[in-house]
Amino acid sequence: MTVNNGQQRLIVRIAVAAVVAVLLTLTACNAAGGGSAEAAGQSVREFNLVARSDVLNVGDRVTFEGFTFNGTMPGPQKVVQQGETVKITVENVDSVAHGLSMHAANAQTSNYLGNIEPGETATLTFEAEYPGVYMYHCAPGGHGIMAHTMGGQFGMFVVEPSQTYQLEQDLGREPDIKIYIVQHEVYKDGRDFFDGNAQYVMFNGETFRYVKDPIPARPGDYIRFYYLNVGPNLTSTFHAVGGIWDYIYYGGNPNNLMQGTQSVVSGPTDSYVIEWQVPGEGPFTLVSHAFGTQAIKGALGIIQSEPDAPRVAEVRSEGLSSSPVEDPKRHVAPFGLGSEDLDKPVRYRPGEEPYIEMVGNSFTPKRIEVAPGTTVTWINEDVFDMLEGELTGKHDAVMVSGDGDDHFATPLLDHAESYTHTFTEPGTYEYICSIHPYMRGTVTVYEDTDLTARSDPQSDGLQADGLQETILASAAP
Amino acid sequence: MTVNNGQQRLIVRIAVAAVVAVLLTLTACNAAGGGSAEAAGQSVREFNLVARSDVLNVGDRVTFEGFTFNGTMPGPQKVVQQGETVKITVENVDSVAHGLSMHAANAQTSNYLGNIEPGETATLTFEAEYPGVYMYHCAPGGHGIMAHTMGGQFGMFVVEPSQTYQLEQDLGREPDIKIYIVQHEVYKDGRDFFDGNAQYVMFNGETFRYVKDPIPARPGDYIRFYYLNVGPNLTSTFHAVGGIWDYIYYGGNPNNLMQGTQSVVSGPTDSYVIEWQVPGEGPFTLVSHAFGTQAIKGALGIIQSEPDAPRVAEVRSEGLSSSPVEDPKRHVAPFGLGSEDLDKPVRYRPGEEPYIEMVGNSFTPKRIEVAPGTTVTWINEDVFDMLEGELTGKHDAVMVSGDGDDHFATPLLDHAESYTHTFTEPGTYEYICSIHPYMRGTVTVYEDTDLTARSDPQSDGLQADGLQETILASAAP
Amino acid sequence: MTVNNGQQRLIVRIAVAAVVAVLLTLTACNAAGGGSAEAAGQSVREFNLVARSDVLNVGDRVTFEGFTFNGTMPGPQKVVQQGETVKITVENVDSVAHGLSMHAANAQTSNYLGNIEPGETATLTFEAEYPGVYMYHCAPGGHGIMAHTMGGQFGMFVVEPSQTYQLEQDLGREPDIKIYIVQHEVYKDGRDFFDGNAQYVMFNGETFRYVKDPIPARPGDYIRFYYLNVGPNLTSTFHAVGGIWDYIYYGGNPNNLMQGTQSVVSGPTDSYVIEWQVPGEGPFTLVSHAFGTQAIKGALGIIQSEPDAPRVAEVRSEGLSSSPVEDPKRHVAPFGLGSEDLDKPVRYRPGEEPYIEMVGNSFTPKRIEVAPGTTVTWINEDVFDMLEGELTGKHDAVMVSGDGDDHFATPLLDHAESYTHTFTEPGTYEYICSIHPYMRGTVTVYEDTDLTARSDPQSDGLQADGLQETILASAAP
Repeated sequence: MTVNNGQQRLIVRIAVAAVVAVLLTLTACNAAGGGSAEAAGQSVREFNLVARSDVLNVGDRVTFEGFTFNGTMPGPQKVVQQGETVKITVENVDSVAHGLSMHAANAQTSNYLGNIEPGETATLTFEAEYPGVYMYHCAPGGHGIMAHTMGGQFGMFVVEPSQTYQLEQDLGREPDIKIYIVQHEVYKDGRDFFDGNAQYVMFNGETFRYVKDPIPARPGDYIRFYYLNVGPNLTSTFHAVGGIWDYIYYGGNPNNLMQGTQSVVSGPTDSYVIEWQVPGEGPFTLVSHAFGTQAIKGALGIIQSEPDAPRVAEVRSEGLSSSPVEDPKRHVAPFGLGSEDLDKPVRYRPGEEPYIEMVGNSFTPKRIEVAPGTTVTWINEDVFDMLEGELTGKHDAVMVSGDGDDHFATPLLDHAESYTHTFTEPGTYEYICSIHPYMRGTVTVYEDTDLTARSDPQSDGLQADGLQETILASAAP
Repeated sequence: MTVNNGQQRLIVRIAVAAVVAVLLTLTACNAAGGGSAEAAGQSVREFNLVARSDVLNVGDRVTFEGFTFNGTMPGPQKVVQQGETVKITVENVDSVAHGLSMHAANAQTSNYLGNIEPGETATLTFEAEYPGVYMYHCAPGGHGIMAHTMGGQFGMFVVEPSQTYQLEQDLGREPDIKIYIVQHEVYKDGRDFFDGNAQYVMFNGETFRYVKDPIPARPGDYIRFYYLNVGPNLTSTFHAVGGIWDYIYYGGNPNNLMQGTQSVVSGPTDSYVIEWQVPGEGPFTLVSHAFGTQAIKGALGIIQSEPDAPRVAEVRSEGLSSSPVEDPKRHVAPFGLGSEDLDKPVRYRPGEEPYIEMVGNSFTPKRIEVAPGTTVTWINEDVFDMLEGELTGKHDAVMVSGDGDDHFATPLLDHAESYTHTFTEPGTYEYICSIHPYMRGTVTVYEDTDLTARSDPQSDGLQADGLQETILASAAP
Repeated sequence: MTVNNGQQRLIVRIAVAAVVAVLLTLTACNAAGGGSAEAAGQSVREFNLVARSDVLNVGDRVTFEGFTFNGTMPGPQKVVQQGETVKITVENVDSVAHGLSMHAANAQTSNYLGNIEPGETATLTFEAEYPGVYMYHCAPGGHGIMAHTMGGQFGMFVVEPSQTYQLEQDLGREPDIKIYIVQHEVYKDGRDFFDGNAQYVMFNGETFRYVKDPIPARPGDYIRFYYLNVGPNLTSTFHAVGGIWDYIYYGGNPNNLMQGTQSVVSGPTDSYVIEWQVPGEGPFTLVSHAFGTQAIKGALGIIQSEPDAPRVAEVRSEGLSSSPVEDPKRHVAPFGLGSEDLDKPVRYRPGEEPYIEMVGNSFTPKRIEVAPGTTVTWINEDVFDMLEGELTGKHDAVMVSGDGDDHFATPLLDHAESYTHTFTEPGTYEYICSIHPYMRGTVTVYEDTDLTARSDPQSDGLQADGLQETILASAAP
């Protein structure tokens, strides 16, 4: 294939992001904050996170634009032993505030990691007292906690118990394979986030990742799953076609034992340790049994059991590395402008009066087309209108570029407040929220009212090339 | 600010409602029905409920129009000891039937409290045999059970166990703070109710209630949560940022113990007792970890831990009292007419043929605007079309007022039945369901087909004043 | 009533289907595949399933067009004892591939039952080692697993434990009544399936089945529920008005005991055994306490307790038999063309450019009306675009009939690929997906642009007759 300039821009951008991510994770972090429980005589386990904006590959030539820790979604995975001391360092190399909520810590965390401004680094030291499978996620505070988690900043942290799990006792040996699975959802905009209508659902960062790349196992293998549903919205039921879980432990705590079930039920941030022996040879399909909202959108994978399967001791939960996507066909940008097949331009006729919601740190609809004389209303449907900056759900809509002579800027709107502007000058205008500048929308004021002439007559055809152009344009800095 | 006539009407109305609510709860109730298990030698715990229509403050200058028990949403909270005898009295001062389902009773309840007509009072006496955290809710029967519960009639009833919870055993002392939390959803119409798309989600009656008014605690405090998700639709995962629950008890039953988890998963009417010690100083954020469908819409609060925090032994689950909202900016009315920013008028062009669903005891869309000659179809999407009155989901659409000459009334429609009417006379018509007269809708037949002239040209501006007018008009009796 | 030709066609079709279903289940099946664990000296329990296309009665004169096992939805129920050997035979008498996932088997199943072509029969033999309440469902593989399960192919399989459940130990006697309940959802199209917006939710195949036909019981009766939520999407909380569950067992495994709860929470494929004694005389309402998404749509029934109630030892989970529906008022066809009150024709004006999603093996919107010169875009929103045939989510749109001169056929589209066609010739065109030929849609190109003349002026009236004609036409072979 030929690569045009726009494509090269995107490829280069993602490639640079990957390199930067690697470099950043290798950086020694300066501890800027204090901790609560550092023990002198103990080895300290370090966990270093770098918060950033990113464009990621999420499978099948679909790209995702959001936030990450260390350049992947889910972010880095860490396993420590119960009783160990953990030192977390979070560096913010982004242009907006980030933070961290670490569910493995029963300790004050918000004071240390709650709101890390661009360019700053923060640390927390805590004791890993409680065994289990935990979520961590971005938590700048307030409204930003929910928005950034949806935007891609989450991962798995495991505290291995001092106790021995039951199947390990039964068999007298350690697991043959440890499979760490983070189930997570991707949204195309804030309205869908509010309604729980996920665009994709994934195990470990890619739709149908383990269908494309099945997990090898052998009959009789003792598998221990570390399963975490990070949501951020849906309730899952993790199941294997052909399998009944021998032992399940809610939260991964060995005291919370149940046995012999076809499924485990997990709301957002619920987790389980699951133990199972592969009962035979052939494929075993792992699936969230919520078939329409989850499995059919990507939350399905395969364990391929064969007597001579290669030995893989561990399947980790990190998402795909940022890497060049040469031929993207769709771009998902919950806060910004995704490709037009997702964030479809909505064309209004003369006399129609569009409402644009500010919701979940997005404008919906993101792209509108109106006649001269049209009055457009922005209304803030985000509810958390306290605090400021990334911590608030207040929004405005401020024009930042345009080829016409219409300039507009709404005031900062609290929840349920609205503002109208009447467009008179033809042109295409792009606007952002000045508080959350990654929020982007466009208004096109078309020249006349000839409604049949939206575009040149088209012959039949695949739309792939057009989509690429759109994706590349929207991903350009 | 200046208060206009419309605003005064609303303020007065809510203030009167508050006074009436207080008076009613003080009224001695005449037991009209029999009970199943009244024990002579025992003290009887009385629980008095008054069912009514109400307009409530749900936070951030948003009002809600629905049904309540005793003037709050959630309604009154009651705590009794296992083994006690409870006498419930429900008085219906409303103009439609109500009833009660009390989950703490393992006893026939429908015969006693199932369908209480306007002006009637009913009682039930039962033994509180099963310890736990229970939901109660309106239950006139059939279709009305679901509609009235969504409409605001629910609350928490706790049966304290004879056994001692584990952390109380561990520490040898009672909790420092008991925090009772009812998580609940608010819907703007029946379609959203059917689809599970909540407008707001709350802890104890107000969005972000405990962000505005944090719960004070001290480091080391032993907190016992009584957490109840009344739904009516969504599954929650209750979590504290910086906290791992020491002990959790499904349903609040001390025998259903699990430990050391980051969350508890709760479908509608699921509940937990949760025990935890505050591990430090600073803010701890309580949240339903379903971030998009729940937390970001209001289900988030704060425990503020400080060494010298004021002592609050109990945080109760009742919602805000009906009190004057001086400057409302939004009005939510799932069955009636909310403010126009929520229940947006939908304008149809000549030739378009609107469908109006009867669904969840609402008309959706609630407000339509059509050209003369337009045929409108009402279709009943409520499924339960047996029984009568508040117990049925049968509906009609009957004009009750209008400034034009078009009169219409559909017959009573069963599920999936529809009826059409062709509008010819310009004017604005309001209609109701004669079976559920709180269901309201409007049809505006506009004068001509000049589609560009919906309103006068507008200059830019905030819409707050306009919204207020709308709210006040819609809330007027 | 008079029955017209169209009605007779439907009645005859359903009646024939019923007879065929009965005959097929009586057919001795030739075991075509091998098994994993057949034990010579044991009695073998046979479980015979016939996969087919069907039109079913789902209550209140609503018909459903999908797939079944043995002509009912849920399909046949089977109860075996722990330790027994089970031989499953699946015969495919349909024109598309089917398969089976049997959750009661901890054994390789996909190799034996995973993809059964039309006309073929397959078998699997397994040991019922794990006690519990299990789901089975169609599983041809890949994308088809989710689509066919939504389409109606599922049921309950119970493995009774060697251990004795607790209430049976407490009372020293077996249950008076065993009530088997499958809760399941019906969708009108694939978009609703993806969004989790069920059209109906049912206990055992009919909306409000046990309101119309209450389950008789007597005060003091020991009831054991076998409750299975097959979803395919929603999380339920099963509850009885007036009841607190004595004992609940997650998955039905007697080791997973909890007690004294108002509810059990179940994601898709979660199940419980629940034990309870009827505490009195009168009605007890069984309900999923997710009131808006489930109960109000049909997931509600009644146990009617009377001292002299007739003795019913067992309530089974199979759905209604295919039987003539004489006067259907609505037709639900998730993949095909339902009645127009559900799958409403969407009329586009000149200049508007429709998008038709291929999603969940349906076209949405299913029926569109466009002006000559309109460019229509089909876009594939199904994500699983690997494999082939029923196993893939690839789709095309191929015209199969029409009274105009416009012929169109898209190429096979991968996920997120789209294709456009500009319609110029008036007429009504029906098209299918050539891979999943039960997917159906229509495009009507109207004659001119007179937008006010969609239909003749109508007088007021009920639309029942019109709906019937539509249903009958759409259900015709």
